[in-house]
Amino acid sequence: MLLGLDPLLGGDLLKTLRDMGHGDSICVVDCNFPAHEIARRAGVPCHALATDTPGAARAILSVMPLDSFVDTPVRRMEVTATPDELNEAHRELLATVHEVAGKEWRMGSIERFAFYEEAAKCAAVVATLDRRGYACFILTKGVIGPDGKIV
Amino acid sequence: MLLGLDPLLGGDLLKTLRDMGHGDSICVVDCNFPAHEIARRAGVPCHALATDTPGAARAILSVMPLDSFVDTPVRRMEVTATPDELNEAHRELLATVHEVAGKEWRMGSIERFAFYEEAAKCAAVVATLDRRGYACFILTKGVIGPDGKIV
Repeated sequence: MLLGLDPLLGGDLLKTLRDMGHGDSICVVDCNFPAHEIARRAGVPCHALATDTPGAARAILSVMPLDSFVDTPVRRMEVTATPDELNEAHRELLATVHEVAGKEWRMGSIERFAFYEEAAKCAAVVATLDRRGYACFILTKGVIGPDGKIV
Repeated sequence: MLLGLDPLLGGDLLKTLRDMGHGDSICVVDCNFPAHEIARRAGVPCHALATDTPGAARAILSVMPLDSFVDTPVRRMEVTATPDELNEAHRELLATVHEVAGKEWRMGSIERFAFYEEAAKCAAVVATLDRRGYACFILTKGVIGPDGKIV
């Protein structure tokens, strides 16, 4: 346990988040996503978290700044037949982002198979226990200035 | 970079600090101490920090609770001929502890060769650039309660 840090942030995940630089991304996925296999092929860590995707995002965004240099540093996997639909998991994730990181962030989307390709470029995959479909997200890390605030 | 965390806390050191439990200790030493060799023999990480021992203690104690269940969770290496002497590095380290963690903590001491044995039992060794002699310390981690405060 560390002072001021969410207990969900274990040592390996903290190392991943600290080692990431601006523009690097981390993937947060539901329990059916091929998290371990995509991470294994990419040669990056897969961190299992005993929470749902909003819980994981809450812990990650408590320390990780989002990237203001890209249009959508938060992206969701699109529902196959209804790509514009924000399902319950999507809405909860966005609400968590707004609560923890600020109201200014928008959520982009990625088609399902393109999402797998983007996931394979991430610095790590976070496998949650979220049982809801399409509860898959990519978060991109930003910059902290000398004053400790997001640039 | 992570929000609210001292930039000196790199990924590997953060992982060490998070993985430590109560009663586990970390050694913070000057630049002449056999840090790498003691860590290598013990099979634990050696983290190099580009600061002096008070700077390292400041970063570590910004997240690591001290152990209230032992008499002296902060211990210094004794000066060989004058074991009761608090040299400049010792005084600065204690002032840093009081500033960051609170005025209630006392500093114990360990004879030089006994210190090497205690260092070998630590979860990691932090090698600083402190050039002052006997600037060697052992910090013991404590407990954070459900309310986020030190127990």
